[in-house]
Amino acid sequence: MTPDAHSTTEMRFEHHIFICTNQRPPDNPRGCCDPEGLASLQLRFKQELAARGLKSQVRANKAGCLDQCEHGPNVVVYPEGVWYGHVQLQDVAEIVDSHIVGGQPVARLRLLEECLNTESCDHRPPRN
Amino acid sequence: MTPDAHSTTEMRFEHHIFICTNQRPPDNPRGCCDPEGLASLQLRFKQELAARGLKSQVRANKAGCLDQCEHGPNVVVYPEGVWYGHVQLQDVAEIVDSHIVGGQPVARLRLLEECLNTESCDHRPPRN
Repeated sequence: MTPDAHSTTEMRFEHHIFICTNQRPPDNPRGCCDPEGLASLQLRFKQELAARGLKSQVRANKAGCLDQCEHGPNVVVYPEGVWYGHVQLQDVAEIVDSHIVGGQPVARLRLLEECLNTESCDHRPPRN
Repeated sequence: MTPDAHSTTEMRFEHHIFICTNQRPPDNPRGCCDPEGLASLQLRFKQELAARGLKSQVRANKAGCLDQCEHGPNVVVYPEGVWYGHVQLQDVAEIVDSHIVGGQPVARLRLLEECLNTESCDHRPPRN
């Protein structure tokens, strides 16, 4: 410990991955990221991290609605603030290897900036 | 939009607040952050942000277990990675005003670095 404990970051999670596990009714026009409520994407992240010995440094966290529903399933990685959309189970190992281990986010899965946290975009109709 | 959309950050959440809403059985020794399952802390953050016109820039997000259970209710604010413990409803306005609006985290509520993401600390007995 340094004299000023709050100035250190050594014991924080190196990456904190939030995986949306929100459900909505099947007829909701916005859709949702985890319609079956199984958190299978979050579980896969946990498994892939554990397999690489990263369980204590990187957390795969369930998250409530991240509000990018039209682009889901959504994942955001902090502290770097990298957002992914349309993430499937078969993408998880690539995200872990390329981004978490290698430091190179997976470009093909990133949410476009013009789609992120906007009132509307090509995929999100304006809300009434 | 700039030519390289991924280099911009203007449309991201300025702060993304994750509030643990996890439940465990009452006899679990680790406790949990939201024993009643009402997400009342997250709701209060939403209300305080909305009252300040910050709804579109700052998101108060439900989170699954953040794994700092012994210090809960827990909250983490990204991208800055500031962790708070033992957060009560009456603390929320102060966090929003001081940290989110004013840029000054609330020192008295911060999780100590020696308690954060450790196998054990003064509050967390070693796990068997």
